[in-house]
Formats: sequence, structure tokens, C-alpha cells
Amino acid sequence: MNYTIFGESHGPAIGVTLTRVPAGLELDMEAVAKEMARRAPGGNPLSTARKESDQPEIISGLFRGKTTGTPLTALIPNGDTHSRDYEALRTHPRPSHADYAAWVRYGGNADYRGGGHFSGRLTAPLVFAGAIAKQLLALRGIKVGAHISNIYGICDGPLEAPEDLLPLAEKGFPVLDDAQGDLMQQAILEAKKDGDSVGGAIECALWGLPAGIGDPDLGRNVEGIFSKHLFAVPAVKAVGFGMGVAFALMRGSEANDPFQVKEGKVVTATNHAGGINGGITNGMPVVFEVTLRPTPSISLPQETVDLTAMERYELTVEGRHDPCVVLRAVPVIEAAAALAGCELLGI
Amino acid sequence: MNYTIFGESHGPAIGVTLTRVPAGLELDMEAVAKEMARRAPGGNPLSTARKESDQPEIISGLFRGKTTGTPLTALIPNGDTHSRDYEALRTHPRPSHADYAAWVRYGGNADYRGGGHFSGRLTAPLVFAGAIAKQLLALRGIKVGAHISNIYGICDGPLEAPEDLLPLAEKGFPVLDDAQGDLMQQAILEAKKDGDSVGGAIECALWGLPAGIGDPDLGRNVEGIFSKHLFAVPAVKAVGFGMGVAFALMRGSEANDPFQVKEGKVVTATNHAGGINGGITNGMPVVFEVTLRPTPSISLPQETVDLTAMERYELTVEGRHDPCVVLRAVPVIEAAAALAGCELLGI
Amino acid sequence: MNYTIFGESHGPAIGVTLTRVPAGLELDMEAVAKEMARRAPGGNPLSTARKESDQPEIISGLFRGKTTGTPLTALIPNGDTHSRDYEALRTHPRPSHADYAAWVRYGGNADYRGGGHFSGRLTAPLVFAGAIAKQLLALRGIKVGAHISNIYGICDGPLEAPEDLLPLAEKGFPVLDDAQGDLMQQAILEAKKDGDSVGGAIECALWGLPAGIGDPDLGRNVEGIFSKHLFAVPAVKAVGFGMGVAFALMRGSEANDPFQVKEGKVVTATNHAGGINGGITNGMPVVFEVTLRPTPSISLPQETVDLTAMERYELTVEGRHDPCVVLRAVPVIEAAAALAGCELLGI
Amino acid sequence: MNYTIFGESHGPAIGVTLTRVPAGLELDMEAVAKEMARRAPGGNPLSTARKESDQPEIISGLFRGKTTGTPLTALIPNGDTHSRDYEALRTHPRPSHADYAAWVRYGGNADYRGGGHFSGRLTAPLVFAGAIAKQLLALRGIKVGAHISNIYGICDGPLEAPEDLLPLAEKGFPVLDDAQGDLMQQAILEAKKDGDSVGGAIECALWGLPAGIGDPDLGRNVEGIFSKHLFAVPAVKAVGFGMGVAFALMRGSEANDPFQVKEGKVVTATNHAGGINGGITNGMPVVFEVTLRPTPSISLPQETVDLTAMERYELTVEGRHDPCVVLRAVPVIEAAAALAGCELLGI
Repeated sequence: MNYTIFGESHGPAIGVTLTRVPAGLELDMEAVAKEMARRAPGGNPLSTARKESDQPEIISGLFRGKTTGTPLTALIPNGDTHSRDYEALRTHPRPSHADYAAWVRYGGNADYRGGGHFSGRLTAPLVFAGAIAKQLLALRGIKVGAHISNIYGICDGPLEAPEDLLPLAEKGFPVLDDAQGDLMQQAILEAKKDGDSVGGAIECALWGLPAGIGDPDLGRNVEGIFSKHLFAVPAVKAVGFGMGVAFALMRGSEANDPFQVKEGKVVTATNHAGGINGGITNGMPVVFEVTLRPTPSISLPQETVDLTAMERYELTVEGRHDPCVVLRAVPVIEAAAALAGCELLGI
Repeated sequence: MNYTIFGESHGPAIGVTLTRVPAGLELDMEAVAKEMARRAPGGNPLSTARKESDQPEIISGLFRGKTTGTPLTALIPNGDTHSRDYEALRTHPRPSHADYAAWVRYGGNADYRGGGHFSGRLTAPLVFAGAIAKQLLALRGIKVGAHISNIYGICDGPLEAPEDLLPLAEKGFPVLDDAQGDLMQQAILEAKKDGDSVGGAIECALWGLPAGIGDPDLGRNVEGIFSKHLFAVPAVKAVGFGMGVAFALMRGSEANDPFQVKEGKVVTATNHAGGINGGITNGMPVVFEVTLRPTPSISLPQETVDLTAMERYELTVEGRHDPCVVLRAVPVIEAAAALAGCELLGI
Repeated sequence: MNYTIFGESHGPAIGVTLTRVPAGLELDMEAVAKEMARRAPGGNPLSTARKESDQPEIISGLFRGKTTGTPLTALIPNGDTHSRDYEALRTHPRPSHADYAAWVRYGGNADYRGGGHFSGRLTAPLVFAGAIAKQLLALRGIKVGAHISNIYGICDGPLEAPEDLLPLAEKGFPVLDDAQGDLMQQAILEAKKDGDSVGGAIECALWGLPAGIGDPDLGRNVEGIFSKHLFAVPAVKAVGFGMGVAFALMRGSEANDPFQVKEGKVVTATNHAGGINGGITNGMPVVFEVTLRPTPSISLPQETVDLTAMERYELTVEGRHDPCVVLRAVPVIEAAAALAGCELLGI
Repeated sequence: MNYTIFGESHGPAIGVTLTRVPAGLELDMEAVAKEMARRAPGGNPLSTARKESDQPEIISGLFRGKTTGTPLTALIPNGDTHSRDYEALRTHPRPSHADYAAWVRYGGNADYRGGGHFSGRLTAPLVFAGAIAKQLLALRGIKVGAHISNIYGICDGPLEAPEDLLPLAEKGFPVLDDAQGDLMQQAILEAKKDGDSVGGAIECALWGLPAGIGDPDLGRNVEGIFSKHLFAVPAVKAVGFGMGVAFALMRGSEANDPFQVKEGKVVTATNHAGGINGGITNGMPVVFEVTLRPTPSISLPQETVDLTAMERYELTVEGRHDPCVVLRAVPVIEAAAALAGCELLGI
């Protein structure tokens, strides 16, 4: 299965084409809608006031409720766009947004309205694709869950068992420790009040993956496949597996996961490696954490340049923005993880 | 340019095939040898006592000192192998090594002697490939450098300017702050004395890359291309770009890099984004940090299982091992970065 | 540039997503419409009576008339479908159609109405993609042309100069020798009268391609790249370059193309090799011929099986069909050739 | 499984790296040697007088006689080279050889001795790779066979049943009709006597492939996958499936293959489609024919250019050459077909 996301924030529609979807999957559209709703903005003060129409219309690859096996394309129409808001940004690139890099890359031809193809809105088709991937994985007993592990330095409780992540999909603010969750939300609202934004992290796990999947080689190892999918999510700037960056603080005797026999199966006593040894799954849950940068869109005045005059310009970004994308990114990261899981399994 | 590494630690030879190397590159074999020497073990108490013959023999793709443009294959013969040391490990997987995962993946058919295809020795052909990539990048004014940024929690001084990394290639222990370097080495030797190992991190930069390279899409964005190459290096468990995981602790107003005009060029005042916005280079140095887990090979007795009897087994790993792979990994990470840079530029 | 075609004959729409289209191409929509019209059915007695709405609606990747460089998706709505006609075919596979192979491949889940994803209608998005490819090639002085070279054994005059192909795009029946063209049309009409169909061949040329493009290796040689694109066109069953199958009848002294210097350039006196030596362009026009099988859809009763009862079934295919797809395939083959040319040039 | 062939005719060795070979295949080295011997020159007056050492040395990916699943590299040392013979050709490209195209492509840096990477000798590693592919296919009951179907217009008897091809692997001149084979050999010897060469064709079949493999889409259809592998064989200039170019002479009623039930299985009464409908296998043998051009290397004087002086040059090619490559190409085409079969099956 392969996916291509297309569209721009202020074009007629965005969408995704999935190729080589296994034929005969009875698509659970309610489950799809649930995933879409988790990502959709609005409904709480933690995210943007924009309303986005997120109902995917499947125009190919589905026949009588089942996947056909030939390319599946879904469209999500755009609406509620305020193109006016963005006109001023055309030659005044927003700091840490893609504006300038894209301006060079595409010779000034990119659709800059609402971030164009770089808009966070493009994660909607990704969630749709991920919803299909999740259903395919579920058929093999593989599940995906995630929690907000960090907002502005405030950490969620540690993940003891991946199963604890499943009920979080129903929560408005998916953390294991609600007290920490309250502090996180406070940090977001304070940033919002200041016209600012905050960064954070999401920890995600897949369980049910068999041992022995992957290869050590370039582009074939589990870490490489997952990171490819994860770094395709806007705002992701770091990916760590198992203990991740904390491995730098450890000795081998602490970091190593002893093998044990449990109910006739080989398991590891700990899972510091995040379920991966030598680029291959070892049968334990695959666990990783991604770090998302603070939304570059803030209301505070910022220094930038006028690309025409090539001189200093003080920019104040108008429009409606998320003070923190981490909350809405949770289903997106799960989607990317599910798609990576499918690639790994040759689905 | 594409590369395939082949070989096993105790086979006749390891090597690499590079396809689509640009024709006409006058290969600087002295520079290649220098890179190989940086990775080679021996010569100091911080690494394994093994001696490895690391002289690559180029058997195709080079004619009269210049690349032909057709596939270039280099062989590195093996020698000084003690296969006996490993025989016992066959059915007793070393914790956190690839042994068990590979045993499942390859149905018990992998060459387990000396780690086989999973041996750190396989990074030698990677360094060779990277040496060619560096020479190709240098023709375009692009340079690659790295330093040890962390050993067991002891951090090197911050990287002020990428140029400071270049002289480090000549240093036995490549850090910016030698006092911190001494503490790091002490930590390694202490771990060694205890029959243990330590993890660490390497920060790497490429400078000279033009703005406007990359795409936001899956498998085409700068972070995705770099992480694919970096996670193909054994022991790498985390990759972060720019501020990396520290983005989780920041507000947008701190994290954003203001654009400025400097000598007629658009630059950013800071480089928290590591030279990448929206998956595309912005013309600033590409900076990232990789975290390497502590070598799983330690001399202390460890708990594992006997895969035949499916019961507990206490394992003591014999053989000669690096107490810390970070030092020898520095040229390996640079090599992976150079190969990623080439892929990015379509070289 | 990469393309993915999606859709089914009787779904809401078919379409195509093109990735990595160079940014800034001012799309000539009139030229696009012209290509679409060449492929569209109706208007003459040689093709099906179906009317197809072939107006592509571009929903992404185009901004203010220029390509943005991000994925470009075009939709072509379906209409004038008679799904009823096909219902009977569901378990009675039409001989030499994809029905049975697809039934096995997709476990009976493919949309069988009107051939579904296997319908010749899916060549409409291919022609659209090819129209863009042609415009990109034209910017580099590369042109594409084709003629019907054979219908039911009646051959067109030989191609003396590729330039002679250009005006044929304006002709209703694109042959060099109209007398032969008349015989061909007669053969088609006779087959139609008999409820039968005929096969044929198309010869196509690209000129303006520089020498030195391609590589001998798997998947990189010119013949391999072109044939990949050509065999993705339904009904194509053979591809030959230059003299093609006639090479089997030749001696080296006849087949070899002598090199000559002409106006300071190296050319070949003849072009039996079709512009390709060793998998690399030699600067002469790339010339090839594709053979298309007779349309499997004929009105005559045919022997097939009932897949449910697993017994003999006599099938009479209803519906409106082309007695010969070769005429409408001419712009399709040109499109595939243009897309191959783009791949070859790294566009 | 993927393969990369490397090496030049007059370098130290040529070879191949195979990635993702399934682990645990007990390699039948005798069968490998047999395939190598079929391709090796010498031993009869129909081929070149060169002697080539064709013993592959496997240096990775094989452990205790079984494939490990990690990259498998085999080397074939070069020997018996007469580099002197080729020196004159450096700036006088041989007509219809790759010399000139490669000279432009690689900026004059290619190893021109003995054809370098373009030498027919590079088919030796391909035959080795194919021998492994054949053993993998045999485990699934899939067989590959071929015969010389045409030499200089002299055709072999028609292929009634693919099984008839199997014993041909043991024959010195693999044809079904020995009387025709005698005429073919006569044609080759006459060409040789005249210092000339002849072209021909090979028909090849795979049987045992299940129905329902492949997809209609670009790069995924059966014809596309096979032709990719076949056009990577030097001298192949045309590929046709089933009736191939003869489809242009047929009506649908003749060309269509009626479906029938036979022993509880769906089969087709004829196999004009060569086992492929809509780019997907239909369970019948996959049958195709490839056309090979006459060897460009002939002893007759030929017109070419001096690339330095840019003027006319009369060239007489020295050295030892095959008057017809078709005979030695039979195992090469089988190898390419076996590798295509593996790709198709996801091996």
C-alpha cells in the first residue's frame, strides 16, 4: 500500500490516493469518521476556531462497501477559507514556516493561501489513509495507540502497558495522568493568551506485530520505515525509538533488555529497545516518541524580510491558529504509524 | 547514487556497490583512506582490541583513477576473526543484539559469527561510500562535520558555527570542549573497567546546501531522507533536527527563526529548525543529532534464553568489544549524512 | 514526475495524480483539450457510440494557471454509463478481457461495471498526464508524434522522417499514406459489420532527445523505461525499438547504423537502432512500434465459463464497443511516450 | 529480491549483488554451474573463441550452503583478456555498439576495454542470479524454458506445450525442430564465413504461475515487469507476449482465448494472450518472444567517425566475436524471465 496526498488548503479539495490496498476490506466508515473527528479543529478552546469540513468522499477503489484492490481515492472538499488573511504573507515569509523554503523550491509558484500544500489541513487525508491502515492491521491483531507525552516540558505519566493507550482515543485530551494533562492544557491556554504557541511530544505504540519483520539495510529497517512516515507529518522534528535520546545517558547493563520465556514465547523483561533489534522487530511492542515543534504561527509581531525589496519587515500574522498542534496531531501520528506498520508487513 | 552493503563479519570479504556514481570523479584515495582510518578500531584504549583490515579494493566502476559512471564495487577483505568466540551465542541470543530478531527473520539461517551482517564492521563499507559522497559534495562547496555531543550524559560545548567541526576530523576524540571530552573518555574507561558500555550522541552538520531542496511529501522531505540514511547505521535509536527533542520545551516565539537579509542573501538569525522548513532546505546549515544506544555487548553476565530448550540461560559474552561505539561512529554518521546529502541533490 | 491513475468506468469520476511536476509550467489548457479530444470516442463510425465527458477538472497543483510543483490531481467525471449492460458479465468472464484474471486477483471485489478500473476509459487520464509531459518536453525542444502503422495487416508507408508525424495529429485517421489508410478503415468497418474487431500497430517517435541519456542497467535503460510506460496501456502486447522484430531477419552488416559527421554533429546514416545503443540514447530519434491486440469485446457469441456453476456458458457481449482501438490509442501511445521521455530526462 | 550487476569486461572481476533473497534456500551449486556453462563461450564453432572463466565465488549471503537472507554477492574473476585489441576503438565508436552513446553519457570516462560494462560478458552474473531465481521458483512448482524461435528468418517449429522446452536445456542447439535448427546453424556459419553476424529470436515460457498475479497499473503489470527484465539484456530490441506482433494481423474472434473448465480449473482453450489479461496472470503459461539484433561486432570494414578529429573513419574491428549471440542468450533470457517471475511473486 502506498499513498499520495494532494491538494492545497484553499483549493477546491484535498485528498489522497492509496494504491495496492488489499481487496475485499469491508471499510468501517464509522471508524473512519471517528478518526477524522479526532483530528478536526473546533469544539474546544485549545485549537483553532476554523471549522473544517472533513468528510472524505471516496471516488474510486470502493465498490459496494468493500475495497476493490485498485487505487482508492478520497476527496475532502475545502470550505470556510479566508484567503484574504494570507495575501499579505506572499512576499513576507513567516518565520519557521515553509513559506520561504517553498518560495525558493517552487520558484514562487506555490499556492501560498492558507499554507497551500503545507497547511496542517493536509493531515486530514493522512488520517483517512491511516484509518484504512488501522483496519487492515486490526485484521491481523495489531493495534495502534498514542498519548501526549509532553507539552512545554510537562510530562505525562510513563507508559506501563501499550493497552492503556486504547481508551485514550475516546478522551478529549489523551493523557494517562489527568493531573498532568490539566497542567499541559493550562500551558497551552497561557501561550494562547500571550499570542504564542507551545511544542510537545507524542508517544505511540503498535502492538501485535510479530517478531522477525524488517531488515538491517538502508530503507528496510523498522526505524527507517517508521521515521520516513513520521517525518512526513508537518511539525515533527525528532523521532526516538524505545528509550530514544535517553540512551545517551545509559550504560549497556541498564539499557539491555534481558530475554525471557513467558508462556512459551520469547519476550524481553524490559522494552528499552522499543521492540526493535538490529532494525528488525523482536515481537515486543514497537514504541517511539515524536517531538513536534511549537506552531510557527503566532500572533506576536515577528522579524522577517520583504522578499521583493530584500529588506527587514515586521510581520504580524493574522488568521486563526492552533496554539499547540500536539493535541490534534495524536491521530495523525497514529495514522502515520499504522501506514508504517502496513509497509513493514508488505500490506 | 544508491548503495548496497553486503557481507558478513566472518565471511571472506564485506563490501559495497554504488550505482549511478557521477562519471569522471577523480577519486582521492588518500582522503578515502583517512576516513577509513577514523573508523578503524585499535590504536587507543577506548575501542575494541580487534584489528580490522580496512583497505577497500575497488573492483569495478573506476578506470584510470576516475569513476566510470557504471556500478562501483569495493571489497574489504576480512581477517583477524575469532569465530570460535561466537559459537556459543548461536542459540543464546545476546540481549539487545539483533541475534534473536534475526533468528526469527531469517529462520535461523543468518551467519551468526561475529554478528554476521549485523556486525558494526559493516559500517566500514558505509564509510567508504560516504567518502565518495563527501568528494562529490565538496565539488559543490558542501561540507560535512560532526562532534561527539554527549557521552553518558556528559555534553560537549554547543555548536556555534558548523565550520568549527571541520578541524575535529583530525582529532583523536572529536569534541569542541576538550575538558568535557576528558570527562567523556573517563566515563568510557570506567564503563570498560566495569565490563560495561555507555551510550552517547553525535551532532552533525552539512553546510553549503542551497535553499529549496526537498519536498514536503512522504519519502521526499529532508528529514525523511536524512533519517532513512541515519537509522541504517547500527545502534542509532533517535534522530532530531535542529533543536530536536528540545522543541517540546519551547514556545513558538523562542523556537521561530527570524528571517534577515545578510549580504544580499536571506538567512535566519538563529537556526533552531536545523536548516529545514516544511521538509525543504532553507539555505542554513542542516544540523541534526543522533543518539546511539550503549553497545549491547558487555562482559557482565546477562539473562537470556536458550532457544532450543526454551529456558533461562545466563550468558557471559566473550570476545573483544567497544565499551562505547560513539567515537568510531563519528565518521559513520558523517558518511550517512553525506550520502543523504547526495540523495537530496539527486546526485 | 510520477503518475497514478485511479477510478472505475462507472464510478463518480476517474482521474490522475501527478507528483513532482516541475513548478511554473504555464499549462496550455487548449492543447490539453485537443489531446483529450483526439482520444474521445464518438464522432465517427470507427469507434464506439459511447459519449464520454472528457473534461479534466484540475483540483490541485495548479495556481493561477501555473503548476505549483506540489501534487497535481485532475478529475474526469463519468457520465453516460449503462451499468445494466454489464451485470450479466459478473460471473461470465469475457474471453481475453481482464474479467477472470481480476476476479482471481481481487477476490471478486473489483468493480466489474464497464470494465471498472480496466476500462479503456482509464486512458483518458493518461492522455491528460501525457499532455502535460508533452508541454514539458516541448520546452526542451523535444517532440512526439505517431501514426497508425498497421491495421489487420495493412501497413502504412514507411516513416522517412519523424517530422512527418507532426501534422498527423490534426488528421482524423493519422496515417502517412491515405490510400493505405482507406484500406485500413475499410477493414475496421468490415470487422464492425461482422460484429468482430481487428488489431493493429502504432509507430511512434520522439525527436530532440539529446545523446547520452539512460544507462544499461535494470530499470534504467531507455528500452526498459519506454516499455514500462507502453505496457501500462491496455491492449499493448508487443513493443519493438527501431527495426524491432525485423532484426531477426537481418545480418549485422545490414542492421548496423554507420556513424557520420553532419553539420559538426555525430549522427547515424540509418536509424535501425531506433536511437538507442546499449540502453542509452545516441541522439537520433527514438522510434518504436507497439502492437495492440484486437478489442476482446466483440458481438459474436463466445465460449466462456460460468464461474459459479463452473460450467460452459455461451456469452454474447452487449454494449457499445470499438471495433478497433488503434485509432483512439494513437494519442494514448504518444502520452505514454511523453511520460517515458520525462522519466528518462529526470523531469 | 533485487539485483545489481557490476564490473567491466577487463577489470579484475564482474559480479552481482542480490538483496532480499529468501533465507534458507539450500543452493544447488551444480545446477548453478550448469546454467553458467550453457552461457559460457567456447566449445563450438558457433560462438566466440574467447574462453571465459565463469566460476562464481559467493562472498556473502550464503552460510553453510544456505542463503542467509542478507545480501548475496557473487564474483566472477576476469581472465583471458586481450585489452590491446580494443585500444584503437577508443575514439572510433563501433557502429550500433554502445561506444558512442556511452562516450557521451559518461563523458569519456567509461572503461572501453572489451566493451567495459556493456560487454556481453556481463550476462554471466545475470545467469547466476537467474539460477537462484529458478531454484526459488521451482520450490513453488514454477518452471522456465526457452527455445531459439528464429535465426535470420528461419523459424523453429511452433511451441505446442511449454513442457517440451525443458529437455532443450540439455541440447547444444535448443530448438524443437532439429531440421530447422540445422538450417539456422548453417546461416550462422555462413555469416561467420562472411565476417558478418545474424539476428534472431527466442521464445520463452514460464509455467506454474498462479492466476491473479499483477496489476494493471504502471510498473505493476505482468508485461511491464517482464519487459523491464528482458530489455536489461544486451541486444534485445523487441518483446512480444503471446501472439505478440501477430495480433496486428488478427480479428478479435481469432485472437480471443475462450475460457473452459478442465479438471475443475478455469483454463483457456488457446493461449494467444500469453497467459496475461489486463496485466494480470490468468493461470495459463506466460509466453513471450524476444528479438535480438545481429551482433554489431563484425569483421567487415565499417564507416564510423573519429571523435577527436570529427571526421570519417573506416573501422575494421579486430578481436574474437560471436557471429550470433542468440544461442548463448537462451539461458540469459531464461534468467531474466526467472527474475521477473520472482519480482511478480514478491520473492
